[in-house]
Amino acid sequence: MRGKEVEQARFKYLNKLSSRGAYITRELKDLMPVRFDESKGAVVWLEQTLLPPDKAEGRDETWLTSTKTADFIRALKRLEVRGAPTIGVFAAYAVASLTFNVPNGESDPIAYIQREAERIANARPTAVNLRWAVNKMLSTLEELGPTPSLEDVRKAFLTEAKTIEKNEYEAGKRIGEFGNSLIEDGTTIFTRCNAGQVACGGFGTAGGVWRTSWAASKDISVVAATTLPLMQGARITMWELERDGIPSTLIGDNAVAWKLANTPGKKAFVVGADRILLNGEVANKIGTFQDAILAQFFGVPFYVAAPLSTIDPVSTSIPIEMRDPEEVKNLLGKLRITTRTARAENPAFDVTPRDLISGIITEKGIARAPYSESLSALKGANPRSARRVV
Amino acid sequence: MRGKEVEQARFKYLNKLSSRGAYITRELKDLMPVRFDESKGAVVWLEQTLLPPDKAEGRDETWLTSTKTADFIRALKRLEVRGAPTIGVFAAYAVASLTFNVPNGESDPIAYIQREAERIANARPTAVNLRWAVNKMLSTLEELGPTPSLEDVRKAFLTEAKTIEKNEYEAGKRIGEFGNSLIEDGTTIFTRCNAGQVACGGFGTAGGVWRTSWAASKDISVVAATTLPLMQGARITMWELERDGIPSTLIGDNAVAWKLANTPGKKAFVVGADRILLNGEVANKIGTFQDAILAQFFGVPFYVAAPLSTIDPVSTSIPIEMRDPEEVKNLLGKLRITTRTARAENPAFDVTPRDLISGIITEKGIARAPYSESLSALKGANPRSARRVV
Repeated sequence: MRGKEVEQARFKYLNKLSSRGAYITRELKDLMPVRFDESKGAVVWLEQTLLPPDKAEGRDETWLTSTKTADFIRALKRLEVRGAPTIGVFAAYAVASLTFNVPNGESDPIAYIQREAERIANARPTAVNLRWAVNKMLSTLEELGPTPSLEDVRKAFLTEAKTIEKNEYEAGKRIGEFGNSLIEDGTTIFTRCNAGQVACGGFGTAGGVWRTSWAASKDISVVAATTLPLMQGARITMWELERDGIPSTLIGDNAVAWKLANTPGKKAFVVGADRILLNGEVANKIGTFQDAILAQFFGVPFYVAAPLSTIDPVSTSIPIEMRDPEEVKNLLGKLRITTRTARAENPAFDVTPRDLISGIITEKGIARAPYSESLSALKGANPRSARRVV
Repeated sequence: MRGKEVEQARFKYLNKLSSRGAYITRELKDLMPVRFDESKGAVVWLEQTLLPPDKAEGRDETWLTSTKTADFIRALKRLEVRGAPTIGVFAAYAVASLTFNVPNGESDPIAYIQREAERIANARPTAVNLRWAVNKMLSTLEELGPTPSLEDVRKAFLTEAKTIEKNEYEAGKRIGEFGNSLIEDGTTIFTRCNAGQVACGGFGTAGGVWRTSWAASKDISVVAATTLPLMQGARITMWELERDGIPSTLIGDNAVAWKLANTPGKKAFVVGADRILLNGEVANKIGTFQDAILAQFFGVPFYVAAPLSTIDPVSTSIPIEMRDPEEVKNLLGKLRITTRTARAENPAFDVTPRDLISGIITEKGIARAPYSESLSALKGANPRSARRVV
């Protein structure tokens, strides 16, 4: 038996014990993807484009450190840091970092921080958590009086960033608990891209659901779709699943219908989100829309798991980031798969219509259709005023 | 403007002239993917895993030559030769090659040839053209009397192989003409994998349709899905489309629903097939099944284009080739995208139910539901007897 098979045999054995009433602990391995070095005011992040680690190639996890806005923006654009909740945590610490590193001779430090924070907020257009976290950080300024000292701002920002981080982690745990109530024993869970520990501030949103079911000794397994062009399903979700010891299968993005048709027993989709409108439309990684259509065709429930920070209470449409076609033509910058002159399109996300969504799992409960009502209630927003804004 | 844009501008101009009644020739560049060297009795084939050529990397088309069964089998298994019609042509010439290269001292050359031909026929399980072509070659033995000379067999086999090649090429042209009648001016044609010149004996089946429409001065364009894990859509279809100067766009396998939702105007799917049952079920490259579900969701017609040689008049189910999971984990043997211990599944094909298919375009006409009747009529088969065989 190979390592994986040994592991699976072990869990089968543990499951058997468990079904006889024995007490079993399945230990989940959380992973905080962003850290803050208070001595330097530096943000430290897991470089996600280099996942998974590969011992055979001598490559372990890579962690990067910086205090510079240009590096923060690059990390966001290059997807060194990705996943809506993790982007929020990263942006919060990046803004906190600004307060530690105001250039000498800067006449108006607060204005400088606001300007730099705005640049960070604009690095990517789709994930609402980026703008949300930056705004949340800057709004703490309002509580500090008209002329706060830089020291006060620093303290307030660091406290706020830590709160955002803690909230995202704990939102994942609560999402996991709500989501687990939807997952029956024996379910095969299909997912897209990555919404686990790395993407979601340590615990996971979609990942939080299957991790909670797994820890609760349910006999689940996860099917991850590769997710062209940057392969986060293959690179990150599969790695996270192995870290936790959860049975998992990788398939191509074009094998989803085949796998649905060839998987006996209970099935469910659980995916993350990058932005959710109050009307229930969900922007998530490219492929989510077609997954939802396939789920409907096969009569499989389709759940979205996301913290309330991913709900955009204002917009009525979602800007889709079109990334460099080279990502599609030259995979991970290393494998050229078409002619150099080929025309390619590279949408990072798509929008899934609410009619295809069985439920949206948040840290405050599971929203069901009609979403304009259920999401507004959970978010504490006013759907009427939201709909008026364009 | 870059080269591609210049080309597209030129075609826009030509189209404009054309719409004013000017005579326009759009020259199609056929490509015969298999040749036969009669001086050595050797088969010569285009190595499709190395497509597209890349001048920047100094890589031109690669052509391989052999007289050995082991090489023929390797070429089929490794997909150096692929595409149902091309597989048929290749198998025919491979069997012809056997007659030129019977080992010295072989006591029963005919038995030897039959044995080796059987090995070739078993190289891959799904494409029916492989078995069909080998059987067609061997059946010529029956017309040669009880003890034919090796010379007679050689002549008969070579004639038969040339006939198979010619028929597949011309089937493509006729499929193109029938298919073109379904394609309105201005249509965006979606396809999967590759069913053009290279896969289909020189002209193309699905490719034959859009090539014929293009040559008829219709303003069409083609959207090719990458097609994990071996990327034939990106590597081969996009290259063929550029050779012909047909406007084309590459998308990821997970961007099909997004592209359907974001393409205005007329749309149609046209795909090839590896095996078609008389009841209308179609085995084709993995992803075709989900493409057909998406086509139905968006109300887009879904056409399959294939020669009658791809119709299996006997079977009632289709064996799906499960290929090495390493193909999914380590793309083209060069880009490792997941952990070494990850479990992956790699079905080469899937089966699309007949209810999702708008029509099957053959060289003798377009079959429509009920397929058991229309396909039997085109194939000249008896559906009653076929259904009795398991």
